[in-house]
Amino acid sequence: MARLTQFVDNEVFRAFATYAAIVLVKMMLMAVTTSYFRLTRKAFDNLEDTVSFGTGESAKKLVRGHPDVDRVRRCHLNDLENIVPFFGIGLLYALSGPELSSALLHFRIFTVCRIIHTFAYLIPLPQPSRGLSWAIGYVVTFSMLYNLMKSVLYL
Amino acid sequence: MARLTQFVDNEVFRAFATYAAIVLVKMMLMAVTTSYFRLTRKAFDNLEDTVSFGTGESAKKLVRGHPDVDRVRRCHLNDLENIVPFFGIGLLYALSGPELSSALLHFRIFTVCRIIHTFAYLIPLPQPSRGLSWAIGYVVTFSMLYNLMKSVLYL
Amino acid sequence: MARLTQFVDNEVFRAFATYAAIVLVKMMLMAVTTSYFRLTRKAFDNLEDTVSFGTGESAKKLVRGHPDVDRVRRCHLNDLENIVPFFGIGLLYALSGPELSSALLHFRIFTVCRIIHTFAYLIPLPQPSRGLSWAIGYVVTFSMLYNLMKSVLYL
Repeated sequence: MARLTQFVDNEVFRAFATYAAIVLVKMMLMAVTTSYFRLTRKAFDNLEDTVSFGTGESAKKLVRGHPDVDRVRRCHLNDLENIVPFFGIGLLYALSGPELSSALLHFRIFTVCRIIHTFAYLIPLPQPSRGLSWAIGYVVTFSMLYNLMKSVLYL
Repeated sequence: MARLTQFVDNEVFRAFATYAAIVLVKMMLMAVTTSYFRLTRKAFDNLEDTVSFGTGESAKKLVRGHPDVDRVRRCHLNDLENIVPFFGIGLLYALSGPELSSALLHFRIFTVCRIIHTFAYLIPLPQPSRGLSWAIGYVVTFSMLYNLMKSVLYL
Repeated sequence: MARLTQFVDNEVFRAFATYAAIVLVKMMLMAVTTSYFRLTRKAFDNLEDTVSFGTGESAKKLVRGHPDVDRVRRCHLNDLENIVPFFGIGLLYALSGPELSSALLHFRIFTVCRIIHTFAYLIPLPQPSRGLSWAIGYVVTFSMLYNLMKSVLYL
């Protein structure tokens, strides 16, 4: 059996794996944050989730929305919409053999932006903090794309 | 032209490809399930989708929500939120050269959990069946992440 | 340090990277389209986003939905639901060493379908233009999956 040792020996791949893992974990933590707000605000989407809080009519009343839950959900969805392209384009970019220093710069700026974005969304901080952190991450993804296309474009 | 033969010769990669394909297909089937519920419950999001059921005011009334449709949509979104990190972290983990037996264990438990999760959500089964199947899949993803970071961490 | 030069020398990988980048960029552009509709229709999800349009009660009134914004959001979510499986299955398929001509055919049909789907959703064009463009992209993804499983199946 062949072992794929070339990846763990490659610094760009290792850097991508590390920063991709950080933003994916950050995204996964939104699920726990949602659960926390659902339990403390007593606002659920499914009737079967309310059993420990009551039965019958009192349970049905807990199937409702809450502004805090909706806010976390929007932040989670925004993560999906931005971290999926970062992962896809970033992986292809990492495999296209970029300079380590340039790759690290892209990965680090994106990661910091998404962490700031989360705090700006959940606290919430006044605009344009959320808008700016979103936009810089967006531009970083396009910059990786541009570098990727310079190496691999094949229509 | 170089051929990337090393991947099809690598058992961990083949195992990852197989189980990732299963959970991605399971996620794609949620789209068909949504269409089925939209057509049988006559509940659509877009006016242009209602043409075969009527025109004018009677068509507009079909642009509405339905609890069954919403439930499938939530299950589909939960898949996206969990299968995307599994795919991302799992792929990087598979490329980092883990033991085959350990990798298979992670992939299999995650896949089984997501299938149970879907049935628990759609039937629906009483809690904590859905919560538990979600949580075990979540922990499996973190376990792959831990093993990945042991091999590749590079900040 | 080992360089991962085999990928930029591989035509199937380069083709996948190019078409995956096109559909991911198309998906990212939905975020800008959403912002455009939010600003022109004055319909926001967060109170802090309305500051440039007023304060107090007049700002609170702008935290609302709008059919045009909802339509772009649904199109964006449909992209996520379809482009994520395309990226995942397509990447594994590209790494499994398919014929270049066959791979290019899959990538090109999928990409064209998603672009037609977006216009069909946003204009909107009468059905079945949106339904058909969605369905062909869906079948293409399953066709890649079938070819992938022929090379790598390992349960």
